Amino acid sequence: MILLLTPTKYTEFMPISMQAVSDWYNEIVERAGLAEHAPVRGCMIIKPYGWALWEQIQRPLDEAFRATGHQNAYFPLFIPLSFLAREAQHVEGFAQECAIVTHYRIKTDPDTRQVAPDPEAELEEPLVVRPTSETIIWHAFRNWIKSYRDLPLLINQWANVVRWEKRPRLFLRTAEFLWQEGHTAHATAEEALQEALRILDIYERFVQEYLAIPVVKGRKTPSERFAGAVETFTIETLLIDGKALQAGTSHFLGQNFAKAFDVKFLNPKNELEYVWATSWGVSTRLIGALILSHGDEKGIILPPRVAPIQVVIVPIWRTEEERLSVGQKAQEIGDRLQRQGIRVKVDDDPQHRPGWKFNEWELRGVPLRLAIGPKDLQTESVEVAWRHTGEKQTYPLSAAIEQLPHWLETIQKGLFERAQKRIQRQTHYTDVYSEMQTLLEEQGGFIMAHWDGTPETELAIKQETGATIRCIPLEPSEEKGRCIYTGRPSSCRVLFAKAY
Amino acid sequence: MILLLTPTKYTEFMPISMQAVSDWYNEIVERAGLAEHAPVRGCMIIKPYGWALWEQIQRPLDEAFRATGHQNAYFPLFIPLSFLAREAQHVEGFAQECAIVTHYRIKTDPDTRQVAPDPEAELEEPLVVRPTSETIIWHAFRNWIKSYRDLPLLINQWANVVRWEKRPRLFLRTAEFLWQEGHTAHATAEEALQEALRILDIYERFVQEYLAIPVVKGRKTPSERFAGAVETFTIETLLIDGKALQAGTSHFLGQNFAKAFDVKFLNPKNELEYVWATSWGVSTRLIGALILSHGDEKGIILPPRVAPIQVVIVPIWRTEEERLSVGQKAQEIGDRLQRQGIRVKVDDDPQHRPGWKFNEWELRGVPLRLAIGPKDLQTESVEVAWRHTGEKQTYPLSAAIEQLPHWLETIQKGLFERAQKRIQRQTHYTDVYSEMQTLLEEQGGFIMAHWDGTPETELAIKQETGATIRCIPLEPSEEKGRCIYTGRPSSCRVLFAKAY
Repeated sequence: MILLLTPTKYTEFMPISMQAVSDWYNEIVERAGLAEHAPVRGCMIIKPYGWALWEQIQRPLDEAFRATGHQNAYFPLFIPLSFLAREAQHVEGFAQECAIVTHYRIKTDPDTRQVAPDPEAELEEPLVVRPTSETIIWHAFRNWIKSYRDLPLLINQWANVVRWEKRPRLFLRTAEFLWQEGHTAHATAEEALQEALRILDIYERFVQEYLAIPVVKGRKTPSERFAGAVETFTIETLLIDGKALQAGTSHFLGQNFAKAFDVKFLNPKNELEYVWATSWGVSTRLIGALILSHGDEKGIILPPRVAPIQVVIVPIWRTEEERLSVGQKAQEIGDRLQRQGIRVKVDDDPQHRPGWKFNEWELRGVPLRLAIGPKDLQTESVEVAWRHTGEKQTYPLSAAIEQLPHWLETIQKGLFERAQKRIQRQTHYTDVYSEMQTLLEEQGGFIMAHWDGTPETELAIKQETGATIRCIPLEPSEEKGRCIYTGRPSSCRVLFAKAY
Repeated sequence: MILLLTPTKYTEFMPISMQAVSDWYNEIVERAGLAEHAPVRGCMIIKPYGWALWEQIQRPLDEAFRATGHQNAYFPLFIPLSFLAREAQHVEGFAQECAIVTHYRIKTDPDTRQVAPDPEAELEEPLVVRPTSETIIWHAFRNWIKSYRDLPLLINQWANVVRWEKRPRLFLRTAEFLWQEGHTAHATAEEALQEALRILDIYERFVQEYLAIPVVKGRKTPSERFAGAVETFTIETLLIDGKALQAGTSHFLGQNFAKAFDVKFLNPKNELEYVWATSWGVSTRLIGALILSHGDEKGIILPPRVAPIQVVIVPIWRTEEERLSVGQKAQEIGDRLQRQGIRVKVDDDPQHRPGWKFNEWELRGVPLRLAIGPKDLQTESVEVAWRHTGEKQTYPLSAAIEQLPHWLETIQKGLFERAQKRIQRQTHYTDVYSEMQTLLEEQGGFIMAHWDGTPETELAIKQETGATIRCIPLEPSEEKGRCIYTGRPSSCRVLFAKAY
């Protein structure tokens, strides 16, 4: 294991090289049992612990969507190639990364036993494995929407999508990934825009309050928009290696897809109008963001609200007699915490020693550990260890049980604040291009700088520094200035960074 | 809408033609808002109401898997073609129905703007869209299993799979469908066999107790086994049109996949052995089974335990004043039922009249309807209507609210018993081949008959009657007899039927 950070108390942050973080990440994702590489290039296997984490992410998001009137549905995996081509920008945006089904049968050579696609079973029209579902969904919406009474139509689906990746990374960039994609239809532009922003707020709240990851809400520049969108909103965060990550996006699609798929509605005046649209999504990439926001040299650190195991109890014994008595007590405590709604695991596996277990559950990021040995049994006490600070302390058992929910809340908050301070330290305001270049080269981070608003300048900076405009913050410090590259006038700072 | 059955009280069943049921089914699935055909041949769109039903099916199954020690995980959508070929029977079984990805990029012709797979982006090895995941999972298990301490390994995944279908039907046979697939690894044949049977019991209990569908547990004949299995267990049911449906299967895979993927473990004696395996699954096909077990001329009928809406409340009014007072009362009742954990909908939509709503919710199979009008408000009463019997009665409101959970249980039981009686009537014991032929031709149903145990006889009967052996029941009426076709000795009756 690579030593990444010095043990962190709340306030410390060691700038470290992107390469060191990258190696640490690759190693830790597998060792913590979250995911591993599949034999298909760019695809991953999400292991049970990683899946349990994904379920914890899905639940509150799904509830938030329902609470705001959205309904789940499911649309097909395959999209006829011609559908993708209907919206010109859309096909251009996804053409380079589509998996295409061309045959529907395998043929085995009777002599060599070699298998291959049967040339006699070629599809008349190739099918694209969905990279996103706007086209197939708007084809369906054409039949679902007739009148203003059918609007708004608020649909979400949890699904797998495929985008061929040149440089895959587990969770962060995989050819197949899991996500939710919302697709909504509205009678007015105003309402659709409000929907896109409402979802952005849901994403912001979830990512900050559950994943303890601070984000900046903003709007993408035209060159960074979703293919087919009129406006793309984003939440951006900054990871421990100083690289930015787009954690979720919400798009105002205007009438682009309604026009491409001819979806009109009768308004109350009995006139036909094209429908207004949004789409939005977050994915398993959030797990990558989580790991690269809170990890340390011991492994990952999970915020309590999404940790599949919030508390691990490790009984400690020497003799068989002790094993029974301590084991029983550990189980009792576990049952009691479970009844309180805490996700708890009692690790009484006799194959491993306590020290091994401590390391293992630290690696896996369990927020709190309770250790109980024969002496604790006599004194009715327990040793409590905090994963994110490394603190340990012995408490009376009853006090510990009582305080536990409160501690979990404190940890949740502590992780967020620690990440917030880190990002503050990694955020630089500059008006000098050479300084921006040096910062990006040496430590990455968010660069808040003025920009003249042209795609040419954006491209030039990208080519020279590798940094893109992550977003134009929604709550800008209204501040007049001059473009860091051209010196032309600018009305607010935008967020530059190197990104995943 | 096609008139299908005369209004049924508990005991009636009208034999009707398979074609009439087929037309009714196609119509009702779409009209009830469950699903519709996608523009990709054989694929379906699961609409919000259908998806809500699928979630109700997933929840208790997922809980039952967890309660028996299984963990969820996720494996890739794509399987290298060569993997499928490793287990000879397996590839033979699925070769005819595989969707194959051959390209990873789209090319747009600059002149015609036509899109096509980019010939320069052909995959070195084609990828199969998973028809089932044994091969990719056993490839992973090779790294996960080293010692007997790693066993049993009990994995489940919820996923989409693709099997090209020649005669697609919504839910019953679709090219893409959703399912869960369990894959387990064990140290001994005995333990794996027990696992396969334990899962069969979970399936039986779920399908009978939640979907109210009676099933026969049995074992498949060698010719009907899953491709690559040593033994396939099944639960079979019979639908209202007299056709059988395989509702779930559980396979004992022996060491076939362990050998194909070289998965060995060190036993306690430090010897290397091949691992023993099971796999098992149920799918969105269960929704088709549900519809074709309990429907009638008014639409589908959902058993309360899986109904997304268990109770619908329809307020009735003439004047605006009544609308407000009755509406408020309806909402109060709704809130109160919801607090009791009942899934309830108050349909106060002013766009439709009560009669329209009554029909709509009957079509959609909501088990209980409460109607409340201005007069009921004065007398504190409510009209209760039972979907499955058509009965209606007015009750004091407080009594109705109190009785409601009990009524839902009664309906659940009533639906099961009604289906059970129907299947009993549709099950025929015969020793005369010509009678079996006539029965199969005229009314379908289960035929319990003696069979000599040879694949030749099985095939001859299939070719002559269209019926297959659905299963050899696990709890047979041990009864010596003579094969209905050859007259050779037989030790028990097996279950013949025409099937979906």
